[in-house]
Amino acid sequence: MALQASGNRNIQILLARRPQGRPQIEDFSVVESPIPEPGDEQVLVQALYLSLDPYMRGRMNDTKSYVPPVQIGEVMGGGVVGRVIKSADPKVPAGTMVEGLLGWQSHAVEKASRLRIVDPRLAPVSTALGVLGMPGITAYFGLLDICQPKAGETVVVSAASGAVGGVVGQIAKIRGCRTVGIVGSDAKAEYIVDDLGYDAAINHRTTPNIKGAIAAACPDGVDVYFDNVGGPITDAVVECLALHARVSLCGQISQYNNEKVELGPRNLWRLITTRSRMEGFIVFDFRDRYPEALKALAGWVSAGRIRYREDIVRGIENAPRAFLGLLEGENFGKRLIQIADDSQLPGAPS
Amino acid sequence: MALQASGNRNIQILLARRPQGRPQIEDFSVVESPIPEPGDEQVLVQALYLSLDPYMRGRMNDTKSYVPPVQIGEVMGGGVVGRVIKSADPKVPAGTMVEGLLGWQSHAVEKASRLRIVDPRLAPVSTALGVLGMPGITAYFGLLDICQPKAGETVVVSAASGAVGGVVGQIAKIRGCRTVGIVGSDAKAEYIVDDLGYDAAINHRTTPNIKGAIAAACPDGVDVYFDNVGGPITDAVVECLALHARVSLCGQISQYNNEKVELGPRNLWRLITTRSRMEGFIVFDFRDRYPEALKALAGWVSAGRIRYREDIVRGIENAPRAFLGLLEGENFGKRLIQIADDSQLPGAPS
Repeated sequence: MALQASGNRNIQILLARRPQGRPQIEDFSVVESPIPEPGDEQVLVQALYLSLDPYMRGRMNDTKSYVPPVQIGEVMGGGVVGRVIKSADPKVPAGTMVEGLLGWQSHAVEKASRLRIVDPRLAPVSTALGVLGMPGITAYFGLLDICQPKAGETVVVSAASGAVGGVVGQIAKIRGCRTVGIVGSDAKAEYIVDDLGYDAAINHRTTPNIKGAIAAACPDGVDVYFDNVGGPITDAVVECLALHARVSLCGQISQYNNEKVELGPRNLWRLITTRSRMEGFIVFDFRDRYPEALKALAGWVSAGRIRYREDIVRGIENAPRAFLGLLEGENFGKRLIQIADDSQLPGAPS
Repeated sequence: MALQASGNRNIQILLARRPQGRPQIEDFSVVESPIPEPGDEQVLVQALYLSLDPYMRGRMNDTKSYVPPVQIGEVMGGGVVGRVIKSADPKVPAGTMVEGLLGWQSHAVEKASRLRIVDPRLAPVSTALGVLGMPGITAYFGLLDICQPKAGETVVVSAASGAVGGVVGQIAKIRGCRTVGIVGSDAKAEYIVDDLGYDAAINHRTTPNIKGAIAAACPDGVDVYFDNVGGPITDAVVECLALHARVSLCGQISQYNNEKVELGPRNLWRLITTRSRMEGFIVFDFRDRYPEALKALAGWVSAGRIRYREDIVRGIENAPRAFLGLLEGENFGKRLIQIADDSQLPGAPS
């Protein structure tokens, strides 16, 4: 089946209204518009894959954060890999595969200089949105720079089978750490141990005493915690911190749909007795060092030392539903929307 | 009036029972015992001043912390300045003024090597328990090492008139920072501005909107927060953090009397959006660098750049009541128990 977006109209997903709590399908709208023409120094990109990421939930709110909110009626923002199909910049000619923040739409014009050129011979181009893109880079700096893990230390990762968490655990193993992953299903638990090399997995949905399970899996305490989820899972890990532990705050997905701030135990005293550190970070702050991370990640992927799993939903019209599922943890690996088949594009390699 | 402890018995304050929540006078007992004799390499110290510090509340609980709990029937632990009145170690002869962890008692024997010699010509000896002792050293490392304040940054301090907080604010000023102190009375607010040089003070007991007051006092946000109290004050400061803020967790006095863990807002997301860091520390971990801190502090004190205030209660039998008051913030400056008048001791300088 040819995907709908291979046609000659631009299909866009807009923010239709601001969600109250958990987003609904009705918070989005699908519109068609003419395919735009590239202006000076711009290129027109046909999207192949759209990345769906938890941070997008924050952008749907009308609150100040590290990026401005999406406005009502605007195209939802997001990372895209696609092929340049028209170019007004000779440095990025038609046919070039690129990655950029092009939003939830089948076609987009963008300044060529704001796009990263992706080499399709290196790895499947979809990885430019995953292990060789923002999630992989997030794992790299959030673990290595923020937490400074040392060989022999115990590293706990929440959302451990996800686009970021899966990479965190494997980098930690490469650095000689012991790894414990927290996941939301038995299949994910099996996957992170069997495929990603985690030393132990905890399914938080079936474990009544999560703190006890962490303590049992980490007999010497938790030296490093890479947090993607927040909430009760993070509370439990904090209770198990070892002396001089480092906590990297990457995401708090358990909190994103809350209509008001949730209450949790005041546990800062635990940071004092263990002399531990918690630090929030945003991957964009490391942008000057992306090449370093990408080089390391590409080397590990091609050497088979980092594996990844993609969870691909076909059709841009399915992006809203796939995003709602992502917020509930229904994805298994990096969730992507496939917007078009590259083989059907004009000028595709035969 | 000669103090009771100048007699020839050892007066000791014991932990009589473990407090439930807020400690009671009945949780302590006062006993008399013979004055002990120093053994090999030991000295007998007549206590002059006992330090009362919030951390002592934690030691009354039977829970694992960074120091073992005081056992029922044991002498309460604590820092003391006193004069050696008998010595079995020629390096620390009778007459020497010393500081050490000698507990809530009028006399104690201790290994001479575990005592710090105090020079009474440098400053009043009581300062060895305050600005030139553990609280001052805590302020020094907790601010300078943990928070790395830079000139022009805004530093907020809770319990800002206390033994630690008063020094933190003054070191921050020396480093060229803007300082905002949070205190529990108008007199303390006036004191920290007029005497300690804070740029602004907030009385949390009379300020209905503490977050609004902090935001107003810190228009560019809070770059550094030195936390002695935890609880709602800390929640409010976290809401006002600037980008790349550093939070030094020194104490959580608002929580120490809780019988169970209190609930507060889950605010880790705020650390992510601001890329901020929270770090707990214990001054003992810096013990190898105490001389560096003491040298700097003594220089600032003698140059009049650091001022201090002592809150002295006379009589060791009043230590329990004075300690309960400390936990409620009734002290104004560094709370000490004066156990004996140095001028009345045998061998005192005339």
